[in-house]
Amino acid sequence: TADVLIEADLRGIESHGAAMMPWYDELRRAGKINFAPRVKMARETVATALIDADGGLGHVPGVRAMRLAIDKSTMAGIGCVVVVNSNHYGAAGIYAEMAAKAGRIGMTTSTTHMLSVVPTFGAEPMLGTNPIAIAAPARRNPPFVLDMATSTVAVGKINVARLKGRSIPAGWALDERGQPVTDPERALARKHLTPLGGTRELGSHKGYGLGVAAHILAAVLGGASFTPLRQRRQGKSEPDNIGQFFLAIDPQAFRADGAFEDDLDDVIDALHGTRPAAAGQSVLVAGDPEQTCRAERMRGGIELPDRLVEELRGLAAGCNARFTLSATSPAL
Amino acid sequence: TADVLIEADLRGIESHGAAMMPWYDELRRAGKINFAPRVKMARETVATALIDADGGLGHVPGVRAMRLAIDKSTMAGIGCVVVVNSNHYGAAGIYAEMAAKAGRIGMTTSTTHMLSVVPTFGAEPMLGTNPIAIAAPARRNPPFVLDMATSTVAVGKINVARLKGRSIPAGWALDERGQPVTDPERALARKHLTPLGGTRELGSHKGYGLGVAAHILAAVLGGASFTPLRQRRQGKSEPDNIGQFFLAIDPQAFRADGAFEDDLDDVIDALHGTRPAAAGQSVLVAGDPEQTCRAERMRGGIELPDRLVEELRGLAAGCNARFTLSATSPAL
Repeated sequence: TADVLIEADLRGIESHGAAMMPWYDELRRAGKINFAPRVKMARETVATALIDADGGLGHVPGVRAMRLAIDKSTMAGIGCVVVVNSNHYGAAGIYAEMAAKAGRIGMTTSTTHMLSVVPTFGAEPMLGTNPIAIAAPARRNPPFVLDMATSTVAVGKINVARLKGRSIPAGWALDERGQPVTDPERALARKHLTPLGGTRELGSHKGYGLGVAAHILAAVLGGASFTPLRQRRQGKSEPDNIGQFFLAIDPQAFRADGAFEDDLDDVIDALHGTRPAAAGQSVLVAGDPEQTCRAERMRGGIELPDRLVEELRGLAAGCNARFTLSATSPAL
Repeated sequence: TADVLIEADLRGIESHGAAMMPWYDELRRAGKINFAPRVKMARETVATALIDADGGLGHVPGVRAMRLAIDKSTMAGIGCVVVVNSNHYGAAGIYAEMAAKAGRIGMTTSTTHMLSVVPTFGAEPMLGTNPIAIAAPARRNPPFVLDMATSTVAVGKINVARLKGRSIPAGWALDERGQPVTDPERALARKHLTPLGGTRELGSHKGYGLGVAAHILAAVLGGASFTPLRQRRQGKSEPDNIGQFFLAIDPQAFRADGAFEDDLDDVIDALHGTRPAAAGQSVLVAGDPEQTCRAERMRGGIELPDRLVEELRGLAAGCNARFTLSATSPAL
């Protein structure tokens, strides 16, 4: 779990790194997460498996699921593993990239604990930000890694606008009647997000459909919960039964060894060579910003906000865990 | 091929129905499509296959590929088939729904003949509208069928705005410098589309990433072409080597028979029950509009524009094919 959280911080995805721990602890204290889970195989075929996470955090079963999908793709050309009775698993792109590092196309989706995304034409949230991540290996270039929430933006971006005293674009968030909100304070009061596209006119029905598709793969396929129905039926300390989907495809089942990576390098190079709209900003490929950030942080370390360090110190004290981080720690 | 075209017209996806035939004939006359192809299996494992379409139209190898993916999912829990040396295959959703009708989750992506989508931060098109379709079976409800171009809108929508004398929203199309265009005439002169999201601010980097992911699955995986590179190297009558990706997942590999369909029914019912933003427009689920249209057209027939009927008449004459459609044909 620590590996996955640190990896997110290395990539600059701070919302899914160490900053998650206070929330995980909150769920632990509410009795909603099993901190001594027995992760087990529930079903298996030559190319598929169902893993029961036993109500624990999603990171360990997630890594296990993607490893198993990769292994199965060696035998069958493709491997598909679903995890049920899980919880938050951190940054989806990390699992997809595991597959890419093993020479596979990787894909993963997850459901979420919270409801935030309002369907097109709707006035109340019915989905989480249900992420989709897809990665693929190149040779000269770092892997392609798309890691996206199916909402237009994350709540964090609205908060940044609030802190900077800026209004937010129509199409990020909605009021209680399903109408666009541009005041970040009002948007944060409800946290009703739009699906990718933002408005019907700009294709929000597609983002909404992708969010449902992510839910079908991550939850309906394995038997995880659908949040609006769960919230109606669930007791206060009952687990959320989050689900995750993992897919690995071996290009060698389709092409000669290396041909896939060579072609993807050509695609990535061509995309990088796109004539830019503005002189200062060249065209990127999914995964580029995270690669740049990771390289910098492997050299310079990850700077944690003082407030987070203090929260983690309190959390360690509450668990009788030794706290080894300090503001000047050379380990940082 | 005719079945797939008629199915598109039945669903109201007229842009991918009989109206395609004049363009297919154009490609035929340019020597770019093989009208006597020998579709053949190129590679096969327990759960995967590569089909060579031999330069023919994509519909017949597409149907064959999805059938094979479904068959493989019976044995292995999942089946993945890629088609290379193909051409346009019509409406992607039809193939995904084939899987749903067979009780499977279905997914397909395709590359395209034309370049139209401009990457985020770019000023020139580098991708096609690369569609993604995902379908899944319910029991009480028609299947979930998401069928989306990874661009914000199709060119056809811009043309409709032109015909109605309306401006288009900023975020549909771009000028030669990569800036938003609101005049539909100017937009149609170049046909430079945005990726889903429309602008960077509203998440176009996600739509751009999805377009590249669709290309990786449909083209890089099997060895089909990347249009910007193809256009630099290709002779005039050389085939385009379009690629398509087909995936079928059997829920029975993960859950007891029927549990998936029951849960998806609950999800669909809950989504339909979302409190609407406006009294007149309830919340839909992907596939709903096409289901409604299909039911109407199965009763009332498909009305073809006079101009299309005349084009088809000319096309039939040019091929020495008997033309059996008439404006009053009861077969309509």
